[in-house]
Amino acid sequence: MKVNELMTHQALSPSPTKLCVKVGGAGEVVFGGHAVVLIAGPCAVETEHQMMTSAQAAQRAGAKMLRGGAYKPRTSPHAFQGLGEPGLALLRQARRETGLPFVTEAVCVETLKRVAEDADMVQIGARNMQNFALLRAAGRQSRPVMLKRGLSATYAEWLFAAEYIAMEGNTQIVLCERGIRTYEPATRNTLDLSAIPILRMQTSYPVIVDPSHATGRKEAVHPMALAGVAGGADGVMVDIHPAPKEALCDGPQALSFASLLTLGEGMRDVAAAVGRA
Amino acid sequence: MKVNELMTHQALSPSPTKLCVKVGGAGEVVFGGHAVVLIAGPCAVETEHQMMTSAQAAQRAGAKMLRGGAYKPRTSPHAFQGLGEPGLALLRQARRETGLPFVTEAVCVETLKRVAEDADMVQIGARNMQNFALLRAAGRQSRPVMLKRGLSATYAEWLFAAEYIAMEGNTQIVLCERGIRTYEPATRNTLDLSAIPILRMQTSYPVIVDPSHATGRKEAVHPMALAGVAGGADGVMVDIHPAPKEALCDGPQALSFASLLTLGEGMRDVAAAVGRA
Amino acid sequence: MKVNELMTHQALSPSPTKLCVKVGGAGEVVFGGHAVVLIAGPCAVETEHQMMTSAQAAQRAGAKMLRGGAYKPRTSPHAFQGLGEPGLALLRQARRETGLPFVTEAVCVETLKRVAEDADMVQIGARNMQNFALLRAAGRQSRPVMLKRGLSATYAEWLFAAEYIAMEGNTQIVLCERGIRTYEPATRNTLDLSAIPILRMQTSYPVIVDPSHATGRKEAVHPMALAGVAGGADGVMVDIHPAPKEALCDGPQALSFASLLTLGEGMRDVAAAVGRA
Amino acid sequence: MKVNELMTHQALSPSPTKLCVKVGGAGEVVFGGHAVVLIAGPCAVETEHQMMTSAQAAQRAGAKMLRGGAYKPRTSPHAFQGLGEPGLALLRQARRETGLPFVTEAVCVETLKRVAEDADMVQIGARNMQNFALLRAAGRQSRPVMLKRGLSATYAEWLFAAEYIAMEGNTQIVLCERGIRTYEPATRNTLDLSAIPILRMQTSYPVIVDPSHATGRKEAVHPMALAGVAGGADGVMVDIHPAPKEALCDGPQALSFASLLTLGEGMRDVAAAVGRA
Repeated sequence: MKVNELMTHQALSPSPTKLCVKVGGAGEVVFGGHAVVLIAGPCAVETEHQMMTSAQAAQRAGAKMLRGGAYKPRTSPHAFQGLGEPGLALLRQARRETGLPFVTEAVCVETLKRVAEDADMVQIGARNMQNFALLRAAGRQSRPVMLKRGLSATYAEWLFAAEYIAMEGNTQIVLCERGIRTYEPATRNTLDLSAIPILRMQTSYPVIVDPSHATGRKEAVHPMALAGVAGGADGVMVDIHPAPKEALCDGPQALSFASLLTLGEGMRDVAAAVGRA
Repeated sequence: MKVNELMTHQALSPSPTKLCVKVGGAGEVVFGGHAVVLIAGPCAVETEHQMMTSAQAAQRAGAKMLRGGAYKPRTSPHAFQGLGEPGLALLRQARRETGLPFVTEAVCVETLKRVAEDADMVQIGARNMQNFALLRAAGRQSRPVMLKRGLSATYAEWLFAAEYIAMEGNTQIVLCERGIRTYEPATRNTLDLSAIPILRMQTSYPVIVDPSHATGRKEAVHPMALAGVAGGADGVMVDIHPAPKEALCDGPQALSFASLLTLGEGMRDVAAAVGRA
Repeated sequence: MKVNELMTHQALSPSPTKLCVKVGGAGEVVFGGHAVVLIAGPCAVETEHQMMTSAQAAQRAGAKMLRGGAYKPRTSPHAFQGLGEPGLALLRQARRETGLPFVTEAVCVETLKRVAEDADMVQIGARNMQNFALLRAAGRQSRPVMLKRGLSATYAEWLFAAEYIAMEGNTQIVLCERGIRTYEPATRNTLDLSAIPILRMQTSYPVIVDPSHATGRKEAVHPMALAGVAGGADGVMVDIHPAPKEALCDGPQALSFASLLTLGEGMRDVAAAVGRA
Repeated sequence: MKVNELMTHQALSPSPTKLCVKVGGAGEVVFGGHAVVLIAGPCAVETEHQMMTSAQAAQRAGAKMLRGGAYKPRTSPHAFQGLGEPGLALLRQARRETGLPFVTEAVCVETLKRVAEDADMVQIGARNMQNFALLRAAGRQSRPVMLKRGLSATYAEWLFAAEYIAMEGNTQIVLCERGIRTYEPATRNTLDLSAIPILRMQTSYPVIVDPSHATGRKEAVHPMALAGVAGGADGVMVDIHPAPKEALCDGPQALSFASLLTLGEGMRDVAAAVGRA
């Protein structure tokens, strides 16, 4: 499959007009516009205290949107699978308390129904990037969709996955680069920031980056978040936790609240340097 | 995730007893026993003529089982998606005419229900190896399951995927190595035959190989099928087509009927050389 | 080989002091200090006109150093192998005319002798990252060394390669991330910017990036250069050409002089945003 | 670089005539003929006892050729670098005692001179596959050359490396597949046996496999050696050691002498099954 054989729903042209994807009841968050959106929250929703303090920290740092996993796709069936319904309730509570919309993952067609009722944006995770039934179902509901790149998906395959959603009528899609699988053992995956300019030439969908899942190491999150902004990303999504070492999921990549505050400042400076807000 | 951190349903020991997985009403096909099983059939079921001539060719070549896709997971939503229900009907007809059981892919929880009614074995494809809802559903039905390795899945992740199935009560699982994604452009994927001996040390599940999807080139199928047998595989699955150049799906990797006959003979000789039938 | 088994010449500590590598007779270029160094020049030196106009364009854009290949390691023996000695002469002329020091590649022990006489900095290319005889020879001469990462080298292997140089007495080493080999066909290689923060924790050597060779596409060079600066790189090296389409080597990744000017401005802004010059 | 753009010294045709490469004074070992050649010996020559007992074990198992590293290219400069000259002396002694020719690695142009004087075949290792000066030097001496595939080299690049040798006048080249770098951590590298049939279509050079370095695990060596033979390899090279756990280099992949004897028998059976000797 060659990139130039792509026939996606969004007309391909050397510099396609960027699509604006609006999230939240008041349409207050826009991906693909002038502003670079910061999304922050815990990898997995665990407790009321964890979620509420995280939401407040996100807001303080300038995040415009919350993240948090209620349903978690885990490699091992013996690992924590997420709180499920109570997790969604805590996300709703966090939204009420902060006014920030939230994105959360749908791991199957069943959970998609619930997620689409509650969440402001539906996430399709890397492992499900070619779960075509789920993609189609995401295209038949009305929430905007954040489509993560598969761990070994080419840009072309990623755009075809977006096309499965778009074909059903929902073109409110944001692409999220979250690292690809390589031979390098020092990072969890390899963040492929070149996806930003290359996809910019091939598609209208906004592109954001997730340096937390890409690198798996908190020390790399700040510099890679800034690199993403400098490279043209329309948003950055990071994991945070009040006590990273006690996290039930992916603690080593979670920023502390203090680090998030610093990141928010850094992002503002770099965004300004590249003419964004 | 380290391989040695695995806690799978099948006890891990230096040389676990191999599990025998029986397929077909009369239990006539056994994976993990003395015989190396040849499975053959078209990548996608297309027409009655194609399916019936393929089934007869498979039988002539010594295949003990048929394959054929009724539901096809395709990278592009614009590509042929399989015949669906009429494809299943043709597979049933081929089974009646030859007496050979068949395996076919379930691409989602919905199609799994239909496939489990008709097929002798349910295939979970590479793209769905971490579709956990589908894995769980496959564990809650009674047909044996062929679990293909994901395009960039480690052995450990593959065994965890099997564990999702086994945890629900179905341990009739056959693992199918079908090539992994590498940087080499001359083959579709890279067939990783080392999976056979390494998995043999870590799990009881039989392991088979699919040299057609792994290499994507018919010239490599015969030698890689023999290599699989010599390397200890419990079975080999290959694509065939009456007219490969006219195939709707993956024609370049399909063997002609004459080539399949030669392959059957070659496999018998190599199997005998390594003490198998 | 695990990263944490590394015993390199430079003491490993959570945050090693960064080494300053000085280049040029007057020591006017410093890697690892406050300033982010821009290096620009043609991939291969071709003609006097090409080299001199490139050098002037580099200077206008704020580059502090020139690059240019006189000896080129090429995949095919039938491809242009570089001008050799006349190429070195043109690089010396460009230095005289602009006052900027230059780096050029030594492809073997023989060419290293000549390069070390003329150049201000010796480059060891990706294909030679584990050419241990060449590394040792580079350690026994007195010019600073730019060590490119091998196409499939881990950070640990890269640091061990640096150690081969350092052991011979030359610790004036700058590491250059230039992309790694992955399955993605849309870019030549995948620029791995996470190398910057991870190496920052493991070694004292400055780290720069080469977005031209990493991406192979001029459209990606500007955003990836800025991403590198935002991610903490100590320098950026880019290919330029007066007429990219006529380049004898790697034309598709070469910036025009106008694009370089824009890049220089962009780098200044981003560097300022992250507290660098 | 596309495979079909290759213009190698050996004319490319759908089924090129296979070249026979003869090794040893009496030309008694032939790669590319009817027989599949077994090469065995220690990874690194360590002591007289180790080398002589290994040579005798190799001969007993039916090996027609010895291997042993006198000069070792090691990732770390602090690792054992080989015995050098005394290693060559032990290899000569092993040849005298058994009558078997030997292959050993030249790690640089300097060592190539010495190796070419003593050895019956010169090995160019994976890390040096694109050390073009070394390739050219190997082409200007008269010993046959075993060219190992680089850790992340495509088939096309590998053939171009062979072309660097052939252009200088030496076409006595045997290609050795030794595994490629992938994300799978359970094996050292991933043995890519598809290289055998694909290269068979593109080049006249014989192809052998090294399952020891490819898998890095002794448990996988026997089955992957047989797989190589079944897949059409012209030879198999394996590491052996009188006491693998005490080996100075790559012990985990070394076969015991008893295992080698079993392997020799297994190879004979599989070779016969595919019409080879």
